[in-house]
Amino acid sequence: MSQSNHKPIGVFDSGVGGLTVVRALMERLPHENIVYFGDTARVPYGTKSRNTIEEFSLQIVDFLMQHEVKALVIACNTIAAVAYKRIQQMAGNMPVLSVIDAGAQAALKTTQNNHIGVIATSTTVNSNAYARAIHAHNPDTRILSQATPLLVPLVEEGWLEHEVTRLTVREYLKPILADHVDTLILGCTHFPLLKPLMKQEAPNIELVDSSITTAEATAQALSHANLLNQSQQMPDYRFYVSDIPLRFQTIGERFLGRSLEQIEMMRLG
Amino acid sequence: MSQSNHKPIGVFDSGVGGLTVVRALMERLPHENIVYFGDTARVPYGTKSRNTIEEFSLQIVDFLMQHEVKALVIACNTIAAVAYKRIQQMAGNMPVLSVIDAGAQAALKTTQNNHIGVIATSTTVNSNAYARAIHAHNPDTRILSQATPLLVPLVEEGWLEHEVTRLTVREYLKPILADHVDTLILGCTHFPLLKPLMKQEAPNIELVDSSITTAEATAQALSHANLLNQSQQMPDYRFYVSDIPLRFQTIGERFLGRSLEQIEMMRLG
Repeated sequence: MSQSNHKPIGVFDSGVGGLTVVRALMERLPHENIVYFGDTARVPYGTKSRNTIEEFSLQIVDFLMQHEVKALVIACNTIAAVAYKRIQQMAGNMPVLSVIDAGAQAALKTTQNNHIGVIATSTTVNSNAYARAIHAHNPDTRILSQATPLLVPLVEEGWLEHEVTRLTVREYLKPILADHVDTLILGCTHFPLLKPLMKQEAPNIELVDSSITTAEATAQALSHANLLNQSQQMPDYRFYVSDIPLRFQTIGERFLGRSLEQIEMMRLG
Repeated sequence: MSQSNHKPIGVFDSGVGGLTVVRALMERLPHENIVYFGDTARVPYGTKSRNTIEEFSLQIVDFLMQHEVKALVIACNTIAAVAYKRIQQMAGNMPVLSVIDAGAQAALKTTQNNHIGVIATSTTVNSNAYARAIHAHNPDTRILSQATPLLVPLVEEGWLEHEVTRLTVREYLKPILADHVDTLILGCTHFPLLKPLMKQEAPNIELVDSSITTAEATAQALSHANLLNQSQQMPDYRFYVSDIPLRFQTIGERFLGRSLEQIEMMRLG
């Protein structure tokens, strides 16, 4: 066991959505220290250009590497879709986990008819990253992607069961349902909060929640690299954000599923 | 007439919404040169903290002052709500126009029952800026403010007539209608695109579109300061943005009402 085992896992997102991944990591890997960065001053990324997303993402990775993380978890589909390769180059030998790889592999294990749907931000859909990740394993899988830009603001407004959200989901799922996909990847960390409503609107489709599959992939990668923390001490969690807006605590805790403490503000760029 | 008359008017916003104000300025003041800055890399501001909004806004003003503008038009309600005073300090003797002041004065002229509603972003509503601007002229006016965070993404999705948008507007207008306001300020530059739908949902309420009133206020301020451009040459329009995302052209032209040319990218901060 090397000195690195006690080092934290670095998890990052454009905002608070990545806290759903932190939550899954806390449950799956209860002894690991975690440092989180959410770029709340510049959120959302999903409607911005590839160059801008890449530039912002590399600033975050630089910040996390200054915290001597032992692994990086890209907890934002948009960042993973656009900047994964550059992040891997910066990370060197360090394991880099991506919500997209984890989600793609989980969907491939789930599908029976080899027909997978993806809902995500416009930038993630346009990047074609899920299709690439899935086709790398099985080139014969059919994939239908749908940009769903309104779901993030609906979740942030807290309208998780609202009629407006139901109609929006229904509209977005129309092509998915018409095309008989049997497995739907929730390609944005905000979407797991809409699972109850989506299950009602698409009862015959299996939903892939990449926060859970990313936590599992992280556990496997750390184990494989002999980097699991064997300490039985209480883990240390640190949360950095580039802005602390109104209602941040409320929204953040909804994603994390527990109280948010030790938040520090840090402006990048 | 001084040397300053040929200088451009500086107009700015957190993103593309301020182009509705540019459009109104082009119509009201067809001989004026205009330089626009939209902070598309960090949009939206309306859900961010006051400190962050102020910091970003002053960076924009600094950029516009380097372009030797003769007047500043704050074409973003959130910026006007939070950073107006600091911007005025930076601007020195230069006229500074604000969509909030213009909207407040137009609403006061419109209301018959002295009961005004405001719909705006969360930050604008929480700043209480409209109430302050209205009460400075008439302390007896009753004001009902409602944060409507979903309307910006609905407009950007282009769902201007969609059933989902109608239900969302209906939900947000419930307290406004119940309280019998007779005049509603559209306190965000995205909202004028929803005027047709809002007129159907609130047929007895007068809607105040601050882009038009801001253009009028700008014309008066320039005239008063003897700064109107007397040149009959074709005016020069320059558009700077901090990011050029997918569909920028489409969305921008929807707001501007004409083709968008001479767009340059400029990162601040």
